[in-house]
Amino acid sequence: MSYRIGFGIDFHQLVEGRDLWIGGIKIPHTKGALGHSDADVLLHAICDAMLGALSLGDIGIHFPNTDEKYKNIDSKILLQETFKLITDKGYEIVNIDSSLCLEAPKIKKYSGEMRETIARILNLSIDDVSIKATTTETMGFVGREEGLVAYANVLLKKK
Amino acid sequence: MSYRIGFGIDFHQLVEGRDLWIGGIKIPHTKGALGHSDADVLLHAICDAMLGALSLGDIGIHFPNTDEKYKNIDSKILLQETFKLITDKGYEIVNIDSSLCLEAPKIKKYSGEMRETIARILNLSIDDVSIKATTTETMGFVGREEGLVAYANVLLKKK
Amino acid sequence: MSYRIGFGIDFHQLVEGRDLWIGGIKIPHTKGALGHSDADVLLHAICDAMLGALSLGDIGIHFPNTDEKYKNIDSKILLQETFKLITDKGYEIVNIDSSLCLEAPKIKKYSGEMRETIARILNLSIDDVSIKATTTETMGFVGREEGLVAYANVLLKKK
Ligand SMILES: [Zn+2]
Ligand SMILES: [Zn+2]
Ligand SMILES: [Zn+2]
Repeated sequence: MSYRIGFGIDFHQLVEGRDLWIGGIKIPHTKGALGHSDADVLLHAICDAMLGALSLGDIGIHFPNTDEKYKNIDSKILLQETFKLITDKGYEIVNIDSSLCLEAPKIKKYSGEMRETIARILNLSIDDVSIKATTTETMGFVGREEGLVAYANVLLKKK
Repeated sequence: MSYRIGFGIDFHQLVEGRDLWIGGIKIPHTKGALGHSDADVLLHAICDAMLGALSLGDIGIHFPNTDEKYKNIDSKILLQETFKLITDKGYEIVNIDSSLCLEAPKIKKYSGEMRETIARILNLSIDDVSIKATTTETMGFVGREEGLVAYANVLLKKK
Repeated sequence: MSYRIGFGIDFHQLVEGRDLWIGGIKIPHTKGALGHSDADVLLHAICDAMLGALSLGDIGIHFPNTDEKYKNIDSKILLQETFKLITDKGYEIVNIDSSLCLEAPKIKKYSGEMRETIARILNLSIDDVSIKATTTETMGFVGREEGLVAYANVLLKKK
């Protein structure tokens, strides 16, 4: 049995006039995440962790933010494509643990649907997808609600 | 043999008039960590990593900072309760690696006692509990000594 | 088969008049990283992750920035010494996944040489060393190009 570890981190600004996509779902909020794609900070961190575990580069290399193809793209498609890369290499996901750092909104009531969405794409049980959340206690750019950050760790196993 | 990975991150402000609890022990300092509980940033990150490894939610869900029961609570109790959740699921901890980001004080001379404290609660050898520390080179809110951050990774194994 | 997880994080200021060493190679840039050693943020994070996985302390304990011996030292030497500590304990590295947070320069065209450099020192295949990079979307001290941050995760296995 052969395991591999992966880590991902992603940042997006929060601005007015954009939708807020996190974990594959749209969350009602006064601000949204700025980016070339739908700017889903959580799915991007998870993609990066999956790519990193197999040394396949990063999300910026696979889905460049200069490519019109990815303009406003649903990041669930990027997650699906990343999953295919992992599967093609003969690996499966053991579990994903992630943390969102954002001041608002509270994501607790959305995390179940996020986990279901991610689990469905990655062919996992919801018990293998963890999403946690914390504020930064009003400190820094996250505390000023200028942006949000996501961290993800994945454990892969050779099939 | 079945492994699971967990990740935790926690933030607290540093303010005058509070004690500084880190890793289960009280550290002499001019400022302390602000929070509903004793605000032990390291134990909170470790709890979150343990919860996250088994997709059990996060510390804010299990020990809400709006619950009077947890007002000024010793976070070693939270760590103990989190450990019971892991054990009840049939898992044991392989190892914990953590990093503290804080400008001051130096925690090197306290880290042995922190590790002993955590290891005792989690029924581990001290060799399975790692605590590292770094400054942020005076940058950001940590550099301005407005707050501190802890990161933790855990590896769990099915018993 | 016995695995261990390690995590590392490191910070350095970016200033004029210093070379920029990342991942063991010198990168042309208008600023360099400030530090007692060559200030290689990525190698330091990887060293810390390796040390942390076996609870051997941190880079500040092993290579103090107050020791003249380490003044302007090539961090590849620190990585080599850290690797010896791991090996002496009977462990080998399964894989390393790392993330650089910096606004500039783009490191994509250097990451291959970085991975080769690290893999050679750690007796790994280049496929077992991952380096990813992201900006912080102009936010915070990284966004203002005042500094850079590296994160690393390692998975170790008992030989
Ligand atoms: Zn993103
Ligand atoms: Zn806390
Ligand atoms: Zn350093």
